[in-house]
Amino acid sequence: MKEKIKVFITGGTFDKEYNELNGSLFFKETHLHEMLTLGRCRLDLSIDTLMMKDSLDFNDADRQSIANACSAAAEERILITHGTDTMTITASYLAKNCRNKTIVLTGAMVPYKFGSSDGLFNLGSALAFVQILPAGVYIAMNGKIFEADKVKKNTDKGEFESIS
Amino acid sequence: MKEKIKVFITGGTFDKEYNELNGSLFFKETHLHEMLTLGRCRLDLSIDTLMMKDSLDFNDADRQSIANACSAAAEERILITHGTDTMTITASYLAKNCRNKTIVLTGAMVPYKFGSSDGLFNLGSALAFVQILPAGVYIAMNGKIFEADKVKKNTDKGEFESIS
Amino acid sequence: MKEKIKVFITGGTFDKEYNELNGSLFFKETHLHEMLTLGRCRLDLSIDTLMMKDSLDFNDADRQSIANACSAAAEERILITHGTDTMTITASYLAKNCRNKTIVLTGAMVPYKFGSSDGLFNLGSALAFVQILPAGVYIAMNGKIFEADKVKKNTDKGEFESIS
Amino acid sequence: MKEKIKVFITGGTFDKEYNELNGSLFFKETHLHEMLTLGRCRLDLSIDTLMMKDSLDFNDADRQSIANACSAAAEERILITHGTDTMTITASYLAKNCRNKTIVLTGAMVPYKFGSSDGLFNLGSALAFVQILPAGVYIAMNGKIFEADKVKKNTDKGEFESIS
Repeated sequence: MKEKIKVFITGGTFDKEYNELNGSLFFKETHLHEMLTLGRCRLDLSIDTLMMKDSLDFNDADRQSIANACSAAAEERILITHGTDTMTITASYLAKNCRNKTIVLTGAMVPYKFGSSDGLFNLGSALAFVQILPAGVYIAMNGKIFEADKVKKNTDKGEFESIS
Repeated sequence: MKEKIKVFITGGTFDKEYNELNGSLFFKETHLHEMLTLGRCRLDLSIDTLMMKDSLDFNDADRQSIANACSAAAEERILITHGTDTMTITASYLAKNCRNKTIVLTGAMVPYKFGSSDGLFNLGSALAFVQILPAGVYIAMNGKIFEADKVKKNTDKGEFESIS
Repeated sequence: MKEKIKVFITGGTFDKEYNELNGSLFFKETHLHEMLTLGRCRLDLSIDTLMMKDSLDFNDADRQSIANACSAAAEERILITHGTDTMTITASYLAKNCRNKTIVLTGAMVPYKFGSSDGLFNLGSALAFVQILPAGVYIAMNGKIFEADKVKKNTDKGEFESIS
Repeated sequence: MKEKIKVFITGGTFDKEYNELNGSLFFKETHLHEMLTLGRCRLDLSIDTLMMKDSLDFNDADRQSIANACSAAAEERILITHGTDTMTITASYLAKNCRNKTIVLTGAMVPYKFGSSDGLFNLGSALAFVQILPAGVYIAMNGKIFEADKVKKNTDKGEFESIS
């Protein structure tokens, strides 16, 4: 596929790191470039960091910011890395406010830097889906693809599920 | 997607390990299950190990074996993990001998067990493509998807490229 | 060295894990056995988990418990894995209450399970020191060895330093 | 300990990497600095790469080169990273040709870059031993310390053992 894909980074567990001085989790720089190198990804990507926030801290202004960036992007296909806690909310917002593009959101349950992370698998998964799917907003988690408004995060199991 | 996906394991660098007693690379058991757990993959998969061979050691009988397994499988969507050296040859063979199914081959340039592996990324990528693509035989490497007979491995760069 | 070495596990960052359901750090089982296997350690060790606590939560009863265990042990050489935050306090307590044995405390600034951990290095270091040093209580961190009461944790730098 | 320690790098499995273009193992740069950073080692070290060779390829000239470097070094305490296959031969050579210094050799059964490596554990172990032991030549492997001429590598088990 020759089309360029836009990648917007917004933070989430995907990019968190461990602060050894105080034992907390925090954001430094994104690890996306390192992950794409590890995956030997040769896609034509344009990558921008919009923000580095835990999605529990997202407000309407943040979501509007993401929607504006998606609309303004020259690309028709967009991947967004995002915290899993409110990924479905952002997906719904984008479905209303940014039509006519293929937008796929993904994230990770464990920080990439922590070793046992699903981040690299999800990145491969989401980048595949965004190349093929028709215009719409989707969530790629747990190897599956979900349409916005038809998915919820099962917080007991820590996984995403379809809702009718 | 509710359809079950079949996964056939055939070996390749994807599953090699380091033998610390003599410094060589060899096959023990597949790491696919461990990788699917790491990726928190919740797809409905049926997994079989057909063989554990370096694809440079494949012969016609091996390829026929893979084709037969694909045809005999109840599933319409099949992922095959395979060595990268002769992946394009197997893909061409399957395109002639196993029609009407969506078959995606993938592998890794670095063994999963070696840390800096593209295996997990490729697995996520291939499992996404196999759910969406129409019937045909494909190769998923470097984040991209290629149709059988339209791809070659660039051995200088260690990556896959389209050919017209 | 033919002598058996006792290892007491008490928790600390060394053994913490990431809870992907709520993003917190917590204790499950110790990873010490896994680390000793990774290090291909062939020493004769007797391993006991005394508790799995963050050392910021330690109280006198916990320290007394550790001292009692050290005194009761048949072994003359004892390694203790411990949180770094109050390691110096426990070391001082043991220097007063458990004499005539070689006791070395160590820990980690980053959980072993997080990838970029100093845990494995410190374990190798501490196991070496405990085999050679004369009776006394010591802390092994940052590749160095410190006597109890002559060391403090520099919390700005996240490392251990001598004090006169 | 305030004394500076010299570290001589000579190669061995410790520093090997996987060449994904042809599937072989080879040397690029040493990973020692990365490992010392991971271990948060704060010792005062002077590090030199003497050569990057598999110790099966060592000849007398190589060993003489190592002995000369040890004698010429200002430091009294020296760590040498070395392939495990002929580590005992080099240790014996040094015991004859470089007296009056504390010299500890260590290595790894699995390349550090391969994930499941004993390299980091051995590095912590060897750096501890070299600080404490009296003048002599030693091998630090499997958590243990052996005197030169009193150790052999058990190639069936892949570990080091005492010989009387």
